[in-house]
Amino acid sequence: MSEKKLGGAGLRGQVAGETALCTVGKTGSGLTYCGYDISELAEKVSFEEVAYLLAHSELPNESQLAEYKARLKSQRGLPSSLKDVLERIPADAHPMDVLRTGCSFLGNIEPETDFSGADKAIERMLATFPSILLYWYRFSHDGVRIETETNEDSIGAHFLRLLHGESPSELHAAVMNTSLILYAEHEFNASTFTARVCASTLSDIHSCVTGAIGSLRGPLHGGANEAAMELIEDMKDADDAEKTLMGMLERKEKIMGFGHAVYSEFDPRNDVIKAWSKKLADEFGDTRLYGVSVRCEEVMWREKKLFPNADFFHASAYHFMGIPTKLFTPIFVMSRVTGWTAHVKEQRANNRIIRPSADYTGPEPRKVPAINER
Amino acid sequence: MSEKKLGGAGLRGQVAGETALCTVGKTGSGLTYCGYDISELAEKVSFEEVAYLLAHSELPNESQLAEYKARLKSQRGLPSSLKDVLERIPADAHPMDVLRTGCSFLGNIEPETDFSGADKAIERMLATFPSILLYWYRFSHDGVRIETETNEDSIGAHFLRLLHGESPSELHAAVMNTSLILYAEHEFNASTFTARVCASTLSDIHSCVTGAIGSLRGPLHGGANEAAMELIEDMKDADDAEKTLMGMLERKEKIMGFGHAVYSEFDPRNDVIKAWSKKLADEFGDTRLYGVSVRCEEVMWREKKLFPNADFFHASAYHFMGIPTKLFTPIFVMSRVTGWTAHVKEQRANNRIIRPSADYTGPEPRKVPAINER
Ligand SMILES: CC(C)(COP(=O)(O)OP(=O)(O)OC[C@H]1O[C@@H](n2cnc3c(N)ncnc32)[C@H](O)[C@@H]1OP(=O)(O)O)[C@@H](O)C(=O)NCCC(=O)NCCS
Ligand SMILES: CC(C)(COP(=O)(O)OP(=O)(O)OC[C@H]1O[C@@H](n2cnc3c(N)ncnc32)[C@H](O)[C@@H]1OP(=O)(O)O)[C@@H](O)C(=O)NCCC(=O)NCCS
Repeated sequence: MSEKKLGGAGLRGQVAGETALCTVGKTGSGLTYCGYDISELAEKVSFEEVAYLLAHSELPNESQLAEYKARLKSQRGLPSSLKDVLERIPADAHPMDVLRTGCSFLGNIEPETDFSGADKAIERMLATFPSILLYWYRFSHDGVRIETETNEDSIGAHFLRLLHGESPSELHAAVMNTSLILYAEHEFNASTFTARVCASTLSDIHSCVTGAIGSLRGPLHGGANEAAMELIEDMKDADDAEKTLMGMLERKEKIMGFGHAVYSEFDPRNDVIKAWSKKLADEFGDTRLYGVSVRCEEVMWREKKLFPNADFFHASAYHFMGIPTKLFTPIFVMSRVTGWTAHVKEQRANNRIIRPSADYTGPEPRKVPAINER
Repeated sequence: MSEKKLGGAGLRGQVAGETALCTVGKTGSGLTYCGYDISELAEKVSFEEVAYLLAHSELPNESQLAEYKARLKSQRGLPSSLKDVLERIPADAHPMDVLRTGCSFLGNIEPETDFSGADKAIERMLATFPSILLYWYRFSHDGVRIETETNEDSIGAHFLRLLHGESPSELHAAVMNTSLILYAEHEFNASTFTARVCASTLSDIHSCVTGAIGSLRGPLHGGANEAAMELIEDMKDADDAEKTLMGMLERKEKIMGFGHAVYSEFDPRNDVIKAWSKKLADEFGDTRLYGVSVRCEEVMWREKKLFPNADFFHASAYHFMGIPTKLFTPIFVMSRVTGWTAHVKEQRANNRIIRPSADYTGPEPRKVPAINER
């Protein structure tokens, strides 16, 4: 994989620490979790196995996995005070902001207290995030107080069940599984780096994750899957997509879902989610959105040598499963919480406070004028 | 001012961007806000003037200041849904976590919507943070629902009034004023850097501040003023302080409130707050805490060439004003929100997503074993 030209602002290409969790842009397809290639993981294991891998550095055996899943399943319920808080968040709030408040409040009522409580807090967040999101969503949008404990076997299926009120098809559960694997971990991306900076002050884990949720929300980061959907949903067909993109490129607008801070030629997650999006399009009977997305990919490569990142084909895939656009980035949270928290533990294990310097560009030293002379 | 040996982990000494807001460790006493020396600001202006300076790059004239203060004063009230949330946070929650949730929830009900709403959101946070903190504190600790709108002229006096239920003395209001000035801004410290990383994804301002609160909470950062208080409050007298510290140093324990990531010889904020702590000690009739603190300073310099940072004499100063220890770091938030939000605006004005790299230390590429072979 050729190296991307790095440097300049945004700490691009500057080493800010060490990690044993992930490679981005190195060897093979470019993305490994604890040494395992992302394509192989996406094909062979469940998201829960990946979550366990990130938490414990090794894949679980059968009994470890069964116990882990049972623990997660048993923790899907929400305390009543948390539900009270969620009921007070208006329907027009952004769901990412709901997760931010939900996570922070969880830290108020079930704090980590000390670092030995990290794993317990992590499993609880992983178990409750879909519940927090959908309790609020269904209450504020449909006026119902849902039961957040389900018997669904996986986090992905649990999410779809809470959203739609019925068990998902095998295909949809499988797509959710892969999607959560693809989003689980990605080295020192902006939200993970936020979590590590926070961890470096020796703050608690809910603070780290709350901060990371806030960073993931931005359209240059996790918010790109929603922005991509907003872009493609107005395109009538492939030719219209081409016209729209050419106009945007001419006006030097950013096309969300394309490009990457580290990858230079392709995002290894794209092939995987694109294949699922195609399968879903066929099932759905789609004659527009998938074709539009493929044309966008062609145009962006032809015109700018820019390639779809993990977010682009996620937009159509989620859409085909009936997921409202504004819940796209929150799904990213349900998955990435595994990567964030693994980084928090890693930062704590070998810590120095993260405190860079700045170049000063402000006024020269000056005297304070009296207020009547300003 | 001699240069501190920088380098190694924690991005120490590495430039992560530009700022026109602040110098740390350069020229004069080493700390300037928009070109004004911290000692001169602490002597001559009000915290509200500093807040205005950080928001608008210039000190306000008389009418600008009067309007600004009137706007802040008029926004001290809390919406009832926010009060409902605060009432659900238990008394044993950490007040920093209360502010984290309070700020996040404020973003749920009064979102920034777009970047043109930044100044409005900033003023609202500045006005409500003391109210959020003390509404929760007085409800959870004293069982009373306080009125958070007061007629106190300054944020510092407003805070003391809500805490004690009566207007503060002139001395106490003056100390709060100086304290808030000293804590307002400090370049790329960990919490501010958290806010900038979050801002670099183009996320909203409540996400940036919520994340920053979480980072400030850590004992290596803002949490140091509370940790310093816990240390000195058990010391019987100066000789006992000496004995305790010598033991801690021998065991290579960290002494909170000493040392700094950038300053190498002294922290220019220390002289200012130390002088106020002395005045308060005299007023209070203290015969222990101030003397203990001075001895700590002597021992740390003699033994380790470490000097008190801004946090150390803040501990005794706040204590003399009857402020409970666990509210120390939240006062830091009430002030630093001005610096954080100024940095968010600066980051937005010239942005590239902050996304550093990591050195990989994990396992070599490996194949996924079947689950029954693990
Ligand atoms: C991901 C991203 C933030 C990386 O930022 P970066 O490392 O600063 O970007 P680069 O240095 O590779 O940008 C190189 C050039 O390509 C342009 N570019 C990058 N991504 C682009 C996009 N999606 N659409 C249009 N132009 C783009 C940049 O504007 C830049 O042009 P310039 O040199 O004229 O300023 C950026 O590609 C982007 O904003 N993409 C859209 C948002 C997105 O999909 N985010 C999710 C990432 S997983
Ligand atoms: C502020 C602080 C985090 C800076 O971190 P840093 O830049 O990584 O620290 P330095 O590189 O200057 O440390 C140099 C040495 O002094 C030691 N040291 C620094 N501060 C110390 C303290 N407060 N007590 C004891 N030893 C200290 C370090 O452990 C290190 O020793 P080592 O070389 O044997 O490992 C650090 O001084 C500290 O933890 N202080 C206590 C917490 C505090 O007061 N924070 C508020 C800051 S405003």
